[in-house]
This record gives sequence, C-alpha cells and structure tokens, in this order.
Amino acid sequence: MEDLEPNDPIAELITNYHELNSSIIEELDEEPSALEFMRYVARNTPFVVRGGAADWQATRTWTVDYLKDFLGDELVNVAVTPTGNADAPTLYTSPTSPTPTLVFAKPHEEDQPFSSFLTYLTTPTPTTTNPPTTTPSPEVRYAQTQNNNLHHEYLPLLSHRDIPSSIPWARVALARDPDAVNLWIGNGRSVTALHRDNYENVYVQVAGRKHFVLLPPACQAGVGERGLRGAVWVRRGGDLEKEGDGDGDGEGGGGGGGLELVLEEGGEMVPFATWDPDRPEENATPYSHLVQPMRVTLEPGDMLYLPCMWYHKVSQSCPPDGVCIAVNYWYDMDFTGPLYPLSTFVRSVSNQKK
Amino acid sequence: MEDLEPNDPIAELITNYHELNSSIIEELDEEPSALEFMRYVARNTPFVVRGGAADWQATRTWTVDYLKDFLGDELVNVAVTPTGNADAPTLYTSPTSPTPTLVFAKPHEEDQPFSSFLTYLTTPTPTTTNPPTTTPSPEVRYAQTQNNNLHHEYLPLLSHRDIPSSIPWARVALARDPDAVNLWIGNGRSVTALHRDNYENVYVQVAGRKHFVLLPPACQAGVGERGLRGAVWVRRGGDLEKEGDGDGDGEGGGGGGGLELVLEEGGEMVPFATWDPDRPEENATPYSHLVQPMRVTLEPGDMLYLPCMWYHKVSQSCPPDGVCIAVNYWYDMDFTGPLYPLSTFVRSVSNQKK
Ligand SMILES: O=C(O)CCC(=O)C(=O)O
Ligand SMILES: O=C(O)CCC(=O)C(=O)O
Repeated sequence: MEDLEPNDPIAELITNYHELNSSIIEELDEEPSALEFMRYVARNTPFVVRGGAADWQATRTWTVDYLKDFLGDELVNVAVTPTGNADAPTLYTSPTSPTPTLVFAKPHEEDQPFSSFLTYLTTPTPTTTNPPTTTPSPEVRYAQTQNNNLHHEYLPLLSHRDIPSSIPWARVALARDPDAVNLWIGNGRSVTALHRDNYENVYVQVAGRKHFVLLPPACQAGVGERGLRGAVWVRRGGDLEKEGDGDGDGEGGGGGGGLELVLEEGGEMVPFATWDPDRPEENATPYSHLVQPMRVTLEPGDMLYLPCMWYHKVSQSCPPDGVCIAVNYWYDMDFTGPLYPLSTFVRSVSNQKK
Repeated sequence: MEDLEPNDPIAELITNYHELNSSIIEELDEEPSALEFMRYVARNTPFVVRGGAADWQATRTWTVDYLKDFLGDELVNVAVTPTGNADAPTLYTSPTSPTPTLVFAKPHEEDQPFSSFLTYLTTPTPTTTNPPTTTPSPEVRYAQTQNNNLHHEYLPLLSHRDIPSSIPWARVALARDPDAVNLWIGNGRSVTALHRDNYENVYVQVAGRKHFVLLPPACQAGVGERGLRGAVWVRRGGDLEKEGDGDGDGEGGGGGGGLELVLEEGGEMVPFATWDPDRPEENATPYSHLVQPMRVTLEPGDMLYLPCMWYHKVSQSCPPDGVCIAVNYWYDMDFTGPLYPLSTFVRSVSNQKK
C-alpha cells in the first residue's frame, strides 16, 4: 500500500463521508411515504424495508413448479459462464499470451426453454454431490437480462399481477414510471461483480437470499477502476439444441466443448471496478482500506433502496434444489443537481492520481 | 488568465454542471408541496415563487411608519460600514502598511433606537442630492444580525403574526423547524458579499427589491477563496449617543471621527471568496470565466429557495425614501449524504491547485 500524503483530498473525502454517514443500513418496518422516500433520495442513502413485499402475490406463489407451469417452454435469454461471474473482471490467458491479464468478461448468452433452464438451476452440481468429485463443474446459468425483461419475455408474470408494475412511493416521489422492471433468476453460484448504475433502484427479493455489498459514490477511488479489454465467453462445440438436454458440459478454459473466453477485437476499453470488497488485499488502491462497505442480506419479501451511483456487489444463497428470484425497478436518476457532475469529478481526480 | 490543461477535472466539473443545469432560475406561480420542494432539495436547485408571500400580513402592512409605530425606540443591533460592505473582502492600508492588502472586514456593530435607525435609512444621502456634492458619504447602516433575530429583538413582529414562524412546505419536507428566522432591513447602499451558508434558505422579500447572484457548490474553484486576515470597522470619536441624532459623519479610512478599519490581532485567517461576479476580471481564478452565475431579482411578495452551500451575492434597490425589508428562514442542512463531503472535496482540490 502506498503512503498517503497528509492532506490528500481523496482520503479526506472518504474519511469525511464515513464520519458523517453510518455504514449500517437503515431498516424500516414498513414502506416509506413518497416524501419519506424523497428524503433518502436527497441523501443518496440506502435503506431496506423488511417484509415490504411480503404481501405480494409473487413472494407467496413463485415456486419452481408454479413458474414452470406458468411459462413452460417459452424461450428466455440466459447468461452462461463457467464459474458464475457474468460481466466481471476475469484473468485471461491463451497459448499466445500466457501471462494472465485482467479483462472484462461478458457471459455467453443464449435462449433456453424456461422450464429446462429451471431444471438445470435446481439440479445439484457434481461438486455438491457426496463424495465430492473433481469433475469440472458444469457451467453456471443466470437469467439476468436488464432490458426491462418483465415487459418482454416475462410479461405474463406482470400481466398476472404477481408483482406490481411500479413501486407507488417511488413512482410518486420521482414523478415517473420505472425505466425498466427486471426479473433475476439464478442460484447460489452466480455472483454479480462490483459495479454501479445510473438508476434509482428498488430491489425486491422474492425467493432465496441476496447478499449486497454497497459502497457510496464518494468511495470511487477505492474501487480500482481500470480500463479493461472486453472479452466474451463463447460456447465451443455447438449450441444448446445440439447438446440435447441443455445441461451443458463445458468449463472455462482453452477449448473442448465447453466455454472459452475470447478477446473482442478492436473494441473500446471498458472502465470497470477491479477491487472486490470480499478480497480486499487484491487489486487494492491506496484508498481501498479507507472504504467501509455496507452489507445487507435480503430475505424473501425484503425491499432494498439502492441509490443511484452506489457500487454494489451481489451474491446469493438458496437451497440446493431451489432458486433465487428477485425483481428490480430501475427509475431514471436525475442528472441535474450536483451528484452526477461531482461523482464524475471524484472519478477524474481519482483516475489522475494513478 | 492561466491556461487550463486539456483534461483539467475542475474545468470539466464546472462545464459538466452547467451543461446539465440551466442558469436561468425556475419560476413557480404558487408554493410547492412538501414533496415538490423536497425534489428541489434533492437536486440542490434554487427556485423562486413569484408572489408566494403576497398574502402575508407583512407584505401589505410593513411600511416605515407602521414599523416605527410598532417597535418605536426599541434598541436594535445595526451593522455600520463606510460604503455598505459588511462582512466583505476589503482593501486595507495604513501608514505602516501602505501597500493595499485584502482583509475580511466586519462591520462596526452598535445598538440604535429602531425609529432613528429607520429615519437614517430613509434620509437621502448627500451624494444623491442635486447638485451632487463631493462631501464624503455618511456611513451605511444595515440591520442584518443573523442570530434568529425575529425571536429576539424583532419578536413583536412575529408574535403579531405579520409573518409566519416557519414555511409549511419546508417544515414538513425537512421535518424540522427553522434554526433561525432573520429580519433584514437596509437600503440600496448595502451589499452582501459573495459567500455561502450551511443552511437551506427560504428568503422572502417584503419591501423593496433584492438582486441575487447565485453560484452552485460545483463552481467553488471560480470564487477565489483565500484566507484573509480579519479586520473590523471601529467608530472613532465616541459612540452614537454622543453624536446626537445618530446620523454619523464618518467615512472609511485612516481616522477622524468616522469609521476606521482595524486589523484583528492574532486572529485566525478567514477563508472567504474574493471573486465578485459583478467585476469578473478582478481576483479571477483560472476557472472564474467558466462560471455562469444565476441572477434573480425578488419583488415584494416573492420567495426564493436558496439551496445550502450555494454562493450568493445580494444587493438591493428601493426608493430613496424607502427601505428594503426581507425575512429569511434558515433550516439546518443535512450533513449526511454526499453533498457536504463532496463539496469539501471540490474545495480541497481547488485550493491545492493554487
Ligand atoms: O441481483 C443481482 O445479481 C445484481 C443486481 C444488480 O446489479 C442491480 O439490481 O442493479
Ligand atoms: O439579504 C442579504 O443582504 C443577504 C442575505 C443572505 O446572505 C442570506 O439570506 O443568507
């Protein structure tokens, strides 16, 4: 760790922020009013409403069997990776570049029949069998399109009113409808790497548990943003139809019928956080040790307000034969006011330090 | 003007801010709801409500005669300066330090009977007589204590319900009572220098007109903040009682019976903005030319929301025999959230650049 200068403005910023703000998330027992919510938006401060969605149809009825009945063999977009890290900084090697370099790896995406996707998710993996095998784990699958998928591939669930199409207090406070409503279905093997979005996010846990690690925009200098070359996981040896049951058999690495990481040619560098708050010694910047991550686990029926521009890393746990399901509501953030230009400023100053 | 580097983060911040935010103030026809107000607080964006206080008792009854009747010879605190700049960067010279240096000059403060204070304010000054004289102008007086004076020396006006004790939509939105309610009484000769406060401010014009120049916190690097030595105007030749009618006769400068600027011994340096948006070439920083000041004139009955941490310079105009009267409501700002630490950061980075 490099030494910081005594009056380093970036260190002072992170320290000041933490002195003025708790790193323990605020917990509400009931949903806020629009005005109460707007106060949190103004403070750009997260909160969780325990049981806020406990009376939603979805949190009571969305079992694997219900969903299979409901959506059947509809094709849905699935992100496929060897170890569960879609859209994540990943070490890349190849015969021609044997020194590992960090690249930004996008998942392999393919359409799969919804019911066989759920079957795959709920089939215990070889490494969880007893005795454990050393067989390479099968691929990890995650339905995680963030393209307003509840108005497209999963529309029947919304039309059936299993979930509301907006969150009343957020809609009234922000005076707009959500820009996207997204369904997330996966299992305990998927992790979403630390990143941030330009959205006000109301995240609702429906089944299984989600573990969030949250960092405010003021901590930008700690996340080790770097420009990473883009790469994508590619399925070798044909697409899913040819493989039959859709179980896949591949693994990341250099070849075979599994998944192979392929560098994108001529693409732009992707600026992305490389620090992982759960492995704080790796890829740390001189400021990472000042950052106090906020952690919260959502149980089914809990709602999280994740303010715009907060970094978040998300992992999940669910029973071996179960799935994790969540719905999030993305409301456009307000680019007027000081937060966006000031956050960009923090980023420019932080990146110039490097 | 120094040349800026191509990717100067400070220049980028000011430019980004202005690209995303209008420099023309938003005008409302009626008072906002608490929720609508909270949206402006969240955006840290000013607005004016034209005629928002037109039905206040004060905007209809507060004439000079009414106020004289009402408060009579009560003693009130008055700020006295030679040219109208209380609490302002001022050039200081003395026989022992003949090179002018910029100091932070506080007014001479003294208690005066309210009715003779008003008589002084409404007596045309020699320089406005015809033909103009070269006689040094008499001193400038301004009742401008910012110590919640409507709950102290001017309490009878509040008790009489000429003005409300809080602004309902601000009280509900911010979930607190004002920390201070202040009355400002002066004439066209007083100017309040560019500065900022850690308060959410609702400013209500009662009589005369006020001209605000406003700069957002993101423009900090343009205001030329410097550490100035403290100084205070001191009345030479005795206090007001001895002078009889309270007209005064002094002028700034090195002596006589008038006002003299005296350096404070051993005091701390006062960090203060030295750039004046109305004289943009003087004391400019390399960033001042990027700043787009927002200007608004308040007429009697208008209300201004002046968000916390915005720089403001305030001047006033009123008929030669009239006074300018305003009331402002200061609500504690929220130090949690990103605005305060990020503004401090902008300031640290800006000051390190110097
Ligand atoms: O649930 C996840 O895996 C990630 C959620 C997320 O990144 C988001 O809601 O913005
Ligand atoms: O009215 C004035 O002269 C100055 C007002 C001011 O600075 C304030 O309201 O904070």
